[in-house]
Amino acid sequence: MTDMRARVAVLGMGEMGRALAGALVGAGRPVAVWNRTPGKADALVGRGAVEVGVRDAVTAGLVVVCLYDHASVHETLDPVADGLRGRTVVNLTTTTPDEARELAKWADAHGIAYLDGAIMATPPMIGAPGARILYSGSREVFEEHRELFGLWADATYDGADAGMASLFDLAMLAGMYPLFAGFMHGAAMLQSAGVTAAEFATRAAPFLAAMTGVFPQIAQIVDGGDYRGPGQSLDWTVAALDAIARASREQGVEPVPIDMVRGLVRRQIEDGHGAEDFDRIIEGMRAAT
Amino acid sequence: MTDMRARVAVLGMGEMGRALAGALVGAGRPVAVWNRTPGKADALVGRGAVEVGVRDAVTAGLVVVCLYDHASVHETLDPVADGLRGRTVVNLTTTTPDEARELAKWADAHGIAYLDGAIMATPPMIGAPGARILYSGSREVFEEHRELFGLWADATYDGADAGMASLFDLAMLAGMYPLFAGFMHGAAMLQSAGVTAAEFATRAAPFLAAMTGVFPQIAQIVDGGDYRGPGQSLDWTVAALDAIARASREQGVEPVPIDMVRGLVRRQIEDGHGAEDFDRIIEGMRAAT
Ligand SMILES: NC(=O)c1ccc[n+]([C@@H]2O[C@H](COP(=O)([O-])OP(=O)(O)OC[C@H]3O[C@@H](n4cnc5c(N)ncnc54)[C@H](OP(=O)(O)O)[C@@H]3O)[C@@H](O)[C@H]2O)c1
Ligand SMILES: NC(=O)c1ccc[n+]([C@@H]2O[C@H](COP(=O)([O-])OP(=O)(O)OC[C@H]3O[C@@H](n4cnc5c(N)ncnc54)[C@H](OP(=O)(O)O)[C@@H]3O)[C@@H](O)[C@H]2O)c1
Repeated sequence: MTDMRARVAVLGMGEMGRALAGALVGAGRPVAVWNRTPGKADALVGRGAVEVGVRDAVTAGLVVVCLYDHASVHETLDPVADGLRGRTVVNLTTTTPDEARELAKWADAHGIAYLDGAIMATPPMIGAPGARILYSGSREVFEEHRELFGLWADATYDGADAGMASLFDLAMLAGMYPLFAGFMHGAAMLQSAGVTAAEFATRAAPFLAAMTGVFPQIAQIVDGGDYRGPGQSLDWTVAALDAIARASREQGVEPVPIDMVRGLVRRQIEDGHGAEDFDRIIEGMRAAT
Repeated sequence: MTDMRARVAVLGMGEMGRALAGALVGAGRPVAVWNRTPGKADALVGRGAVEVGVRDAVTAGLVVVCLYDHASVHETLDPVADGLRGRTVVNLTTTTPDEARELAKWADAHGIAYLDGAIMATPPMIGAPGARILYSGSREVFEEHRELFGLWADATYDGADAGMASLFDLAMLAGMYPLFAGFMHGAAMLQSAGVTAAEFATRAAPFLAAMTGVFPQIAQIVDGGDYRGPGQSLDWTVAALDAIARASREQGVEPVPIDMVRGLVRRQIEDGHGAEDFDRIIEGMRAAT
């Protein structure tokens, strides 16, 4: 029989769960693994991990969960909630902030210490420089297992609200996808004139990286809520966006990302704010239901 | 009478024209200025520039044009085209690539050497580090006036097609506006949870700057046109985008930039490419009319 108390259990042997467990095994930690469909952890078992049933797994000193989504976490943990009482769960499954908050409440009701995590890395990056995992929820759990977390990635603690790690993660991804879409739009414009995306990348990457230097100025304005400053006006911006859109169509490229920004700008102009700062587009995104 | 041949003439005393002329005056160059509405150049005249009529202006050794748009360039130059024969025009007015190409053709028909430029800077940045101006059109004109251009900004030459400077400029701006909109979306999500945009900026800026490091990989795939690689699939991406959109709505924020990306992803999935790479969204922007 395995003494589970000395072990870290990893629930979920998908790509990410295997990477997490692999980093622990690699560091010489005793690791137990579980997966709904058995057999996925064979390589890890070969390296010293033990594959166990879920009832055994949840008796480990630390239970790390990395499943598909919020629903699969409940499907897996609900039947073994009693076995988890007095134990610690670190949930690295991607969830929304409200889902993380719900799981924290559920854990609290069952006497389980709960820390939520959001992984900002792909599986091959786990244990390598550049990976980051955000945590929120129980500060005690974060402090106690900080060293172990360091085996996976840089670890930051974002507060007692269990939803904060997910919220920061998703907010950063909310910036990343439009960045990629905008880069591809620009690349399509240039490809249509015989310039490769590779050549465009060498110029767009440093330019857009430098443009993130404007974020603190944007932040100051949107935190202050006064858009009457000397910055680029909405009226001016709409002309600039029209020039981009016209150039794009001339090149046979549909300016989808620019049309999105233009819609946000138009919304503010129609509300009578044309002379105010471009940054006012943020107001058009608030108070959705 | 003023000997115009030794002078650089700047046509257009808007904010940008004044900045360009000011940098030349500051470097001790003889400068002539013209503006449709007189009186805007008084400060420059006080520093040694001479204000002249447009017929005089176009007899200068180099004629720099910085007006409102393509139409205003024609309105200004058409009546004095004969006076420009054998002379050199550098047009820094923002135009689309096709508008720049049209002006190059018009100049050629009138025996005028033509270089087009796209200013990637605001007026206060002219003459300071970080400003860049892209040029395309006549290589001879670029080489001859390279030193002068260096008084304004870093200068790059993008080829004989007069539209290329504008195309590169607008393609980079096509990346910049969605970057800003995405940052503001993320900021709105966090503000709704009591985190300032300023705090978000300190984390989003380095993260998104680092994400521009992915551009060469995206470029390799979109230049190759084979989207069946091991990257993040469209099916996987749509789930990630849905999580961001759900989290955003939970926080009372309408996920406008993410909905735009989602639309591009859905288009590819509906065309049967769900298992292929996310970068395939570029195909949905091609061949607009
Ligand atoms: N991969 C990445 O790049 C990445 C990056 C950041 C975050 N994440 C997050 O990490 C988590 C895992 O991702 P992954 O890449 O490892 O996914 P994956 O390879 O698709 O693995 C999914 C895992 O979830 C299990 N599962 C699914 N539904 C279940 C259920 N109802 N009950 C029990 N187990 C269930 C699967 O078990 P079976 O083998 O039995 O199907 C499998 O172990 C996700 O939340 C993902 O968003 C992944
Ligand atoms: N400002 C920036 O941050 C920036 C950055 C990059 C590029 N640019 C480009 O630089 C160019 C000038 O911008 P700006 O900021 O200087 O604009 P601005 O301050 O609005 O000045 C516009 C200029 O164009 C003249 N003009 C307008 N219509 C005309 C017409 N039909 N005939 C003759 N002159 C006409 C105006 O003359 P009046 O005084 O008689 O009206 C004025 O001199 C634009 O193409 C702009 O896109 C500007």
